Amino acid sequence: MLIIFRFYQKLIHINTALIWLLSIINFFFYGDYDEKFSIQSIAKVFSLTYAYKILGENLWKRVDVEPSGDPFNSLVQLEFENGIPRNPFINAGALVVCDVLMEHLDNPKVEFLDFVKLISNNKNIVYNKEIAESEKTHGYRNAAILNFMKAFGNIKNNVDEVLDFYFNLCSIEMSCKELSETFLLFANGGKLVNSSEEIISTSKTKRINAIMQTCGFYDEAGEFAFKVGLPGKSGVGGGIVAVHPGKYSVAVWSPKLNKKGNSVKGMYSLELLTTKTQMSIF
Amino acid sequence: MLIIFRFYQKLIHINTALIWLLSIINFFFYGDYDEKFSIQSIAKVFSLTYAYKILGENLWKRVDVEPSGDPFNSLVQLEFENGIPRNPFINAGALVVCDVLMEHLDNPKVEFLDFVKLISNNKNIVYNKEIAESEKTHGYRNAAILNFMKAFGNIKNNVDEVLDFYFNLCSIEMSCKELSETFLLFANGGKLVNSSEEIISTSKTKRINAIMQTCGFYDEAGEFAFKVGLPGKSGVGGGIVAVHPGKYSVAVWSPKLNKKGNSVKGMYSLELLTTKTQMSIF
Amino acid sequence: MLIIFRFYQKLIHINTALIWLLSIINFFFYGDYDEKFSIQSIAKVFSLTYAYKILGENLWKRVDVEPSGDPFNSLVQLEFENGIPRNPFINAGALVVCDVLMEHLDNPKVEFLDFVKLISNNKNIVYNKEIAESEKTHGYRNAAILNFMKAFGNIKNNVDEVLDFYFNLCSIEMSCKELSETFLLFANGGKLVNSSEEIISTSKTKRINAIMQTCGFYDEAGEFAFKVGLPGKSGVGGGIVAVHPGKYSVAVWSPKLNKKGNSVKGMYSLELLTTKTQMSIF
Amino acid sequence: MLIIFRFYQKLIHINTALIWLLSIINFFFYGDYDEKFSIQSIAKVFSLTYAYKILGENLWKRVDVEPSGDPFNSLVQLEFENGIPRNPFINAGALVVCDVLMEHLDNPKVEFLDFVKLISNNKNIVYNKEIAESEKTHGYRNAAILNFMKAFGNIKNNVDEVLDFYFNLCSIEMSCKELSETFLLFANGGKLVNSSEEIISTSKTKRINAIMQTCGFYDEAGEFAFKVGLPGKSGVGGGIVAVHPGKYSVAVWSPKLNKKGNSVKGMYSLELLTTKTQMSIF
Repeated sequence: MLIIFRFYQKLIHINTALIWLLSIINFFFYGDYDEKFSIQSIAKVFSLTYAYKILGENLWKRVDVEPSGDPFNSLVQLEFENGIPRNPFINAGALVVCDVLMEHLDNPKVEFLDFVKLISNNKNIVYNKEIAESEKTHGYRNAAILNFMKAFGNIKNNVDEVLDFYFNLCSIEMSCKELSETFLLFANGGKLVNSSEEIISTSKTKRINAIMQTCGFYDEAGEFAFKVGLPGKSGVGGGIVAVHPGKYSVAVWSPKLNKKGNSVKGMYSLELLTTKTQMSIF
Repeated sequence: MLIIFRFYQKLIHINTALIWLLSIINFFFYGDYDEKFSIQSIAKVFSLTYAYKILGENLWKRVDVEPSGDPFNSLVQLEFENGIPRNPFINAGALVVCDVLMEHLDNPKVEFLDFVKLISNNKNIVYNKEIAESEKTHGYRNAAILNFMKAFGNIKNNVDEVLDFYFNLCSIEMSCKELSETFLLFANGGKLVNSSEEIISTSKTKRINAIMQTCGFYDEAGEFAFKVGLPGKSGVGGGIVAVHPGKYSVAVWSPKLNKKGNSVKGMYSLELLTTKTQMSIF
Repeated sequence: MLIIFRFYQKLIHINTALIWLLSIINFFFYGDYDEKFSIQSIAKVFSLTYAYKILGENLWKRVDVEPSGDPFNSLVQLEFENGIPRNPFINAGALVVCDVLMEHLDNPKVEFLDFVKLISNNKNIVYNKEIAESEKTHGYRNAAILNFMKAFGNIKNNVDEVLDFYFNLCSIEMSCKELSETFLLFANGGKLVNSSEEIISTSKTKRINAIMQTCGFYDEAGEFAFKVGLPGKSGVGGGIVAVHPGKYSVAVWSPKLNKKGNSVKGMYSLELLTTKTQMSIF
Repeated sequence: MLIIFRFYQKLIHINTALIWLLSIINFFFYGDYDEKFSIQSIAKVFSLTYAYKILGENLWKRVDVEPSGDPFNSLVQLEFENGIPRNPFINAGALVVCDVLMEHLDNPKVEFLDFVKLISNNKNIVYNKEIAESEKTHGYRNAAILNFMKAFGNIKNNVDEVLDFYFNLCSIEMSCKELSETFLLFANGGKLVNSSEEIISTSKTKRINAIMQTCGFYDEAGEFAFKVGLPGKSGVGGGIVAVHPGKYSVAVWSPKLNKKGNSVKGMYSLELLTTKTQMSIF
């Protein structure tokens, strides 16, 4: 497991936290912050950001921003709410976001990767084709969700093509270092830290952070808010990335998951971080 | 409608926001900040605080901290999760919190009111007996929930007595001024602003704020986080109170509710507040 | 375990079945047909019959006649269908039927028992007060259902009084011999076999039989229709009674229940009976 | 609307019903009994019969025989019951039956049609390719169900091919005369009336009748049992076919459907038929 983060440069008073945090790294996790892993659902934050940038508030006609509650009845909720997913981070919502991007991009896979390269300031980000293909052979549940939403008219593209895009998106590999650097965007009001280029507006950035806060951890969003107190997003690959708006971003990775699909050691490390430093949003 | 708030005194740089906010007050809402209204579910924050203070982390064996998702199947969730409510702010959870308090207090109604008087620094807080009685005659749904949880062993006291305590608790009346002053506690790390007396620890305060953030607005917690970006709690009386940890608290009141049970103008005012001042947690 | 039945006298051609059946009795179950047991939910057929006799088709404004499907979401269904239970044999429906009887009878407990004595031609039927009281101490789930329906306006009487009536009703004890004799009413078009007195019309009798067929076995109605092919009703006391309209009635009793709450040996005996005799309705 | 039926020839005492029924026909519906319509879901009885004939009791490992209760949560039930549909007549179950046939037949579409020709003693039965194709363009909900079951391992064939087979099957057109003649098989213990050839055993026939009784009318199975009192099956084309085991079969057709998807006049005609003739199974 490794943990890496980079603070928003202008906030000098975080030095004490940095020292403490580095001591954790030295003790438990030193050395792997450059190892790449499959970011999986964390990529949904990038696709949401891109789609929100393109469509603006019209995006919310296609997907809601509410936490989903229990996992077992997501299909009922889709039915109850006429094919509008609860939020962009449950599978149904992420698939709608993919569909939205496919409607507005000429070459979705290429352009999406270009967008990730831009916000990560990193030209070496690639899809892992092998992982994307292997997911596809077990994608029946996602195909079920897509067909169900298409029955409600909330999917415009071909189901197989949306699935292909979605699995590619989830196959992106990044290291903790790369992830935390990329998520500085959300700690920095939507501007790239190096160039100060605005990717999305401050207002939209705040709203993406709010969605991460309430919906970023499957059925454990409340637990994460309760113990860690930061907006963030986890992936089944064992990665978690979190953001303190205006202050810092942090990424952790440890593959062992708890029953709800979140990294056990990752959650614990972040809980330690915000408890010891008292640097959470609450 | 009226809106009132008081900033945490030591934060001088909020002056600009204050000025702006006062201009809203002058324009829309001037003058009623002393009018009392039924705080209803907002009182659940006080009962949660008191129970958490008494039981500590053992409280979470009786009630969870996850958002509840859709409202229509709360009873299914109770069944699915063996009588453990999703969080302390849905009715089921608030009833469990009442039951917990009744187990640990000799005279629950008196001692709870004393606690509210303490944290509000206000000896004039009373139950409105008339409102409490009138609720009771329509309390069948809450009686259903209580009996259902008792079947799972998660209610220890007599159902009618828990209901009576619960309806009294919800009948408390406060003005916007009183509410915002009381909620400064949660902006101030659990300490009373005037005396610096610690009511609950900073860590517990952060966690209560996190629960308000993820669960404080019925099935609109995500929408509130998205648009307002503050922890808070609403009541069907039309009141909303919100907190910026370390900075300020704010209370609004306007009786007209939207379909999800939250004050229409209240939500809109708070959205304006945090958008114009850029003072949200995200 | 014992099995007993009495054929509708005028149907002479059933003699061969009778002989065969008696041989089953001799082999497996001889001797206990006079032993009394708690008929539990089987009593719901009597209360339905009495309420249907009194209200006629107006009864169906308060309770539906559809099978309930899965057991786990009966409270959702109640909510989804605005407090109208799916059928008179799930608990919610049986409680509504009790409420209906209480509205129309001066002394519900006495008059209901008189009705059972009439249709069973047996003055020795009594409530078992001890069983009724012991149920009451665990009746929280039924109290939950009652309060929930009262919230929808579908319960008119005091919840505790409905519960008391319901638990008394379920506490009735009868032997297999008595049960099968009583259910001849439903094999005989609603007329008492001995006196030919019409208790309910032939048309209503057919409809009660139809409800037994589709809803008489909790979540195993389909299995019972599939394997046995007769209208019937089971109780958690281990009793099952079934009817071949125009032909015979049969009662079995064996306390061991399967996961769905029906007597294991009882279902197997009846399957043997209708398979070997080829005397089912299908 | 037209109504047509043919009685099982050896039962002479039904003449009075026949006369009565003919008078209905003369009055309301005379003359269209030869008009073909799309039998839609009624074809599920034929596919069930064929699959049951081939697999015997092993079929029930793939699909259950319980009524499905409410329609809105069929996907939840699939999840709750690990991909095993409640019964062979809901879409999920019919799709599994198609998948079963595809596993065991070399040329499913041809062999299935041959089977229908055999039991209907009618070489002119064909698929309506145009209808099959038009369904396919709106088949997203069925594709969702298929993919969902495939995620549980209960679909063995390619999803698109199962859908193609299913839509062909539902596109069969028959007249009331043809339907009622074909369903005589189920009134005649599984033997063809003309040749006495056994298509399926008497025991299996009874069980198919039982499934029609408890599951044949979407969420109105109880209502149909209550009012009509015969096993049967409806289709969204407006057709209904019913069977009195050992006695007769009857088919009606009238396109206007009620909210639950069953023919309004069809149900009413059959209610009149069994009420006036007193010829139901109850």
